[in-house]
Amino acid sequence: MKNLDELSITDAVLQSHAGTPDSRTKELVDSVVTHLHAFAREVSLTENEWLAAIRFLTAVGHKTDDRRQEFILLSDTLGLSSLVTAMSNRKPEECTESTVLGPFFLTDAPALSNGGDVAQGAPGELCFVSGSVRGVHGEPVAGARIEVWQADEDGLYDVQYEDLDAPRARAVLLSEPDGSFEFRTIVPRPYPVPYDGPVGEMLKTLGRRPVRPAHLHFMISAQAYEPLITQIFRKDDPNLRSDAVFGVRSSLVCEWTRHTAGIAPDGSQRETPFTTIAFDFVLAPVRI
Amino acid sequence: MKNLDELSITDAVLQSHAGTPDSRTKELVDSVVTHLHAFAREVSLTENEWLAAIRFLTAVGHKTDDRRQEFILLSDTLGLSSLVTAMSNRKPEECTESTVLGPFFLTDAPALSNGGDVAQGAPGELCFVSGSVRGVHGEPVAGARIEVWQADEDGLYDVQYEDLDAPRARAVLLSEPDGSFEFRTIVPRPYPVPYDGPVGEMLKTLGRRPVRPAHLHFMISAQAYEPLITQIFRKDDPNLRSDAVFGVRSSLVCEWTRHTAGIAPDGSQRETPFTTIAFDFVLAPVRI
Repeated sequence: MKNLDELSITDAVLQSHAGTPDSRTKELVDSVVTHLHAFAREVSLTENEWLAAIRFLTAVGHKTDDRRQEFILLSDTLGLSSLVTAMSNRKPEECTESTVLGPFFLTDAPALSNGGDVAQGAPGELCFVSGSVRGVHGEPVAGARIEVWQADEDGLYDVQYEDLDAPRARAVLLSEPDGSFEFRTIVPRPYPVPYDGPVGEMLKTLGRRPVRPAHLHFMISAQAYEPLITQIFRKDDPNLRSDAVFGVRSSLVCEWTRHTAGIAPDGSQRETPFTTIAFDFVLAPVRI
Repeated sequence: MKNLDELSITDAVLQSHAGTPDSRTKELVDSVVTHLHAFAREVSLTENEWLAAIRFLTAVGHKTDDRRQEFILLSDTLGLSSLVTAMSNRKPEECTESTVLGPFFLTDAPALSNGGDVAQGAPGELCFVSGSVRGVHGEPVAGARIEVWQADEDGLYDVQYEDLDAPRARAVLLSEPDGSFEFRTIVPRPYPVPYDGPVGEMLKTLGRRPVRPAHLHFMISAQAYEPLITQIFRKDDPNLRSDAVFGVRSSLVCEWTRHTAGIAPDGSQRETPFTTIAFDFVLAPVRI
């Protein structure tokens, strides 16, 4: 019979799954249990605080559905997603850095030709994006699959609207034989992560703002290269230092140049201001 | 602008809530973040493992409702509940040890006179329970509020039945002026914790059995004493060493004596076997 106390309980739990068939599973759960118990001891967790944690996690679970992933938001806002992304994407310095995927990626973005319109009616100021996809030796990557998605001028992604019947402000296109790509879209704005749930309450309790700096999401894949999931940010965005999900990397910040009315990069005459963004992506060779 | 990497991310998260108004909240979240990141680094958590964890927690949240608390079950089966209970209930050695509350406590147990029937129709073999409530100097505690709840012979609590319209196998009674109490009930059986959800899947993956040894739950409170939440166990129960929620304490194990048909403790003649259990509870003086 076991006579457990606050010191012996951790070993007893580890012993209980000593026979776990899969060794990696055992390694993960051993570490979870050890850190969970170490946390409780370190702070002398009280029964009321434990109950508050149970209620918080329950609320996070109940907020989560097909359109809203509150646990990913929790992971994002506690920096866990950013840490896992960084550990999983170590690569040569000259490669474009990875950053967090975020909760708004969908697998069925519509295909677009180079030069086409990503926005498809999403509201915002006109923006022209161009760049290239290359390898670490400068070689152009032809036919790279470039997926882009973004918020509109109200800080919302298409999935956050209840009544849209087609995707917008998301698309997939291919790089040209010289590695180049271009498209037009709208300027993404800074926006708050969804803060009407328990994670929003948590941020408020911690005195944190839920805001994300403006960014464009990219997922780029090509044969013989590692897939790249990243975001590009605006140099003069005042929110770069307080990203609620810790996704900013200085190498991913670039000039977003605003132009007065006139001739746009596509040769057209524009009556209103527009923005241009240029960014060159460098892919890492595939890991053997 | 922040240039975060897998080393600097933890400090960045801690910095982000440096202005948390409540210092205890800050202490708790600092420790959670530090241990969460240390865990991820220690095991080099992959993106797929991270996603599996998100899905597991989502399933735990979706399994939880008014009648089922899968997060408490998770805490119980990882030994966290037992640890928090032990840390929160340090007391003189001569006092009865506390153990976990479990998920089946309800606040509206019906009142019962001493000698009354706790079972109220719950199926099981007859059992007579008697004992006393005392302080550390042996003084009787009169009028202590004694709440008892238990599983029936099928290993089920009343709340686990869909169609019961009144509580059964749970009651509240008061100790007599000499500190004594007695009631009749049914013999509780070993039972599995609910294993038809994600925590059950987890136990299976870890090669663990979901079983709990047979026990009676008690919650005892009296003026000038610390409340006591505990369970008593059967000496020859083969499951004492593998309690799925780590609730067994050797000081809480006692003889459950089975008698053949004959005269029962209440003076009645019984045609079938019955069990007697005696246990004396010692309350800790209230903490100033």
